[in-house]
Order: sequence, then structure tokens, then C-alpha cells
Amino acid sequence: MSDDTAARISGIGIGPGDPELVTLKAFRLMKEADLIFTPKARIKGESLARNIVERAGIKGGIFIELEFPMITDQTALEQKWLAAAAAVIEKISEIASNSAKAVFITLGDPGIYSTWTYLQNALAEIAPEINTETVPGISTMNAAAAALNSPLITGRERLALIPLPKELDELDTLTAIFDTIVVYKISSRLADFGSKIEQLGLSGTTSLVRRAGLPDEEIFSRLSEVKPETDGYLSTAVIHCKTTQKDHEK
Amino acid sequence: MSDDTAARISGIGIGPGDPELVTLKAFRLMKEADLIFTPKARIKGESLARNIVERAGIKGGIFIELEFPMITDQTALEQKWLAAAAAVIEKISEIASNSAKAVFITLGDPGIYSTWTYLQNALAEIAPEINTETVPGISTMNAAAAALNSPLITGRERLALIPLPKELDELDTLTAIFDTIVVYKISSRLADFGSKIEQLGLSGTTSLVRRAGLPDEEIFSRLSEVKPETDGYLSTAVIHCKTTQKDHEK
Repeated sequence: MSDDTAARISGIGIGPGDPELVTLKAFRLMKEADLIFTPKARIKGESLARNIVERAGIKGGIFIELEFPMITDQTALEQKWLAAAAAVIEKISEIASNSAKAVFITLGDPGIYSTWTYLQNALAEIAPEINTETVPGISTMNAAAAALNSPLITGRERLALIPLPKELDELDTLTAIFDTIVVYKISSRLADFGSKIEQLGLSGTTSLVRRAGLPDEEIFSRLSEVKPETDGYLSTAVIHCKTTQKDHEK
Repeated sequence: MSDDTAARISGIGIGPGDPELVTLKAFRLMKEADLIFTPKARIKGESLARNIVERAGIKGGIFIELEFPMITDQTALEQKWLAAAAAVIEKISEIASNSAKAVFITLGDPGIYSTWTYLQNALAEIAPEINTETVPGISTMNAAAAALNSPLITGRERLALIPLPKELDELDTLTAIFDTIVVYKISSRLADFGSKIEQLGLSGTTSLVRRAGLPDEEIFSRLSEVKPETDGYLSTAVIHCKTTQKDHEK
């Protein structure tokens, strides 16, 4: 329910890391913004999102960093999200104008594994009068496929996007019914993932892009080329599962 | 195998339709281009991709339209792709410079159901000396989710991106194992799709965005709100399948 007289905040996807992968719309909204909220994992650490938009040339906005810690305690997390929402409301009310232009920037696309969802939900809970809108960004998987210069899916193929399953044997079923599987959230389990992919006979058709779009991006067109010491943080794997033709393509 | 002295063509995703969803990189490459190749379904019809980039302010480039017809005859299609590749080579050689900057623009992202794949494969076949690179774009599914102001996936959820299956009963299995399913290529089968979704009890959590990002975009947050006379061309459905909590989320 949109209320044109109420304050508004836009959740903006800024893409995976290359400042040039920001959209014209995101760039304009950041340039026009009175307040730019940026997520960071630790309050004393660096905000990767802020760093990217600064490299894109956004300097004038007022940056306010919000903490979205990488913890698993659900209650503690929800407290952090509510605290972030409260900070947003406080800063918007300091501007003391309903025409304040506030944006929240998020890596990749705000619809896929994004902190924007948590902030948006917390705002809906404690300040439902604030309008929110979402502006899409380049997803990491699209950037990874472009870095590999190879399509994700064509024709009538099927794509799955999943976090690395806790039970790796789930990949047996998924690789049997999908043409391409993109795997996020590999984190410290890259070696185990590699073993599973080798067992499935898919090492030759599985690629890995690490830190897509960032200055230290690494591209491995086959999983077997990945150096053993590589960690999986910010890695995206693309599994092409076509060892046999899938039924739905016939 | 990159050869810096050879000609180069960039496959550029220009997003789903809103000229502001073009990235800074795509915009720069189009501005700098000597040749802008654009796909169209019929040689006498309108090129939607060309229309979008013209609205983004790209006027100076030399537009060359290539035909990618919507036909199912595989042999005829492959002939058209080879003809498009031959036209690209001819136009690049007319520029008679290895520093010619050529781009091919494509709707959405070039890694997802894109004509770029066919052109890139045809170029590899008949002119392997030409270098290609891929520049990602906003996918229609990300734009549709943003239009709905609602996330696709969060936490450890799983997403599937599929064309509407020929056998609609395949949705029984897929909705049971995924949290969110994005359905493309609904075309003339919107009514049948709606019936299947109703049978699965998911009408209340299935949305539809038609012509995402285009001036006549239509947003239906529930499939039951879709007018019966609506056709499914350029429609994207987002099925939230969470009638029960999925195993992998526990």
C-alpha cells in the first residue's frame, strides 16, 4: 500500500563487485540520495558495498553503515535487523522531511540472498508507514557466467540456484533433473564439494568464479584447476550437468 | 584463447526493458561502439532491444539488425544463426580495422535464454579468430522480483528457473523440492498454468509480471488476479512453494 506522503527507502542492488556493473538507475538514485545505508558484517570492518559504490564515483551521499553480522543465532540476528531498521528510521527522521531520499545498497541483486530482505521485513514490522521499493542489480551468477564467457542455460534448459547443501548427496538428485546448477555459499567446504563433483563425473564441466567482479577475481573453468589452498568464500560454482540429455529437452 | 590483435565483439545484456536498468558498462560499450548488432524476430518487425537502447540515449552507433526468427525447425534455425554470424563478420571486415568495436545487444542477461549464445556459437564455428566477451545484464527474473518488491530467495532457500514444462505435472515434483520457482516461456499456455497452480494450492503465493520493465508492464501479485484475456507472452511467474517447510531449511 503505497503512501506518497510518507518517507521512502529504496533497496538497490549494486551488482557483484565491478563498479561498472551498477545500473544507470542505481547510479542515479545514489547520486540523488540524502542518505546511503550500507551493510557490513562487522561494525569495525570494511563495507564491501560502500567500497564498490565509492569506486563507481558516488562520494557525495551520506554513508551510514549498518551491522548485519554473520552469525547463526536467529534471535540475536533478528535483534540486529530490528536495530538496523531503528537506525534507518532515526536517520530518516533527522532529515525531518518526507521528501528525504534514502537508499540501502546491497551486493548483487536485492532479491537473492540479500540483507535488504531482512531490513525490509524489520522496517515493515516497526515502521509500516515507510514505503520501500526494490531496484534490481546484476546477480553474482550472471556475472560469473559472463566472466566464464559461457551461457548458464539456453533453449528449454533448467537452472537451479542453491546454497551448497549440508548433505552433499542431495546433488545426486539435483544434477539428474537440472541442466545447470549454480552453487553459492560454498565457504570453507570447497574441498568436499570438489570430491563430490568428481564422484559425479562432473569435474570437467564444473567451473568456479571466486570474488566475481572484484579486483582479485579468480576464474577456474574446470574445478580440477582450483588450487588446493583456495577457500570458497564469495565463490560461485557453475555445474553443467549434461552428461546425459535431460527428458524435458527432448 | 584471447588474441589481442584480432577483432572482438561483446555480447551485452541490456536488461528486461527499462532503459535505466542498463549497466554503466553496457552504456559505455554501446557509446564507444562502431557497430551495434541487434536481434529481431522478423526482419520487417521492430527490434525491442534496439528500441530500449535508443530510449537509454544511444543514438550514435551504427545499428545493424540481425534476424533470429521464432521458429522450431532446428536446421532452419542453425542456418539463420550462421547467416547472422556471416553478417557480423562482413560488417566488421568493412570497418577494416582490428580495433573495430562491435557489440551485440540482447534483452535480459546474455547467459540466460539469450540469442547471444547462438551467435557466439556460430561465430566460433565460422570465424574462430574473432574474440568474444560477455557482459552481464539484469535478468528478467530479478526485475520481476523487484517489481513485486519481494525477494526470490533468502537464507538457505533454493530457486529453480525453468521454461513452462510441456508436461505440467512436472511442477508437482519441482514445487515439492524448491522454495521458489521462476517460470519463463509461458506464452499461450497461461490458462493451463493457472489451473495447475490452483490444483497445487499455490494460487495465493504465485505472482506474474508481464512485460517487466516495459512501459506497459503489468504486475499481478496473485495469479488469481490475472485477467482471463491476458496472454503469457513476455510473462514471468514467481511461484513461492512454501506450503510446507522444506527439509534443507531446517
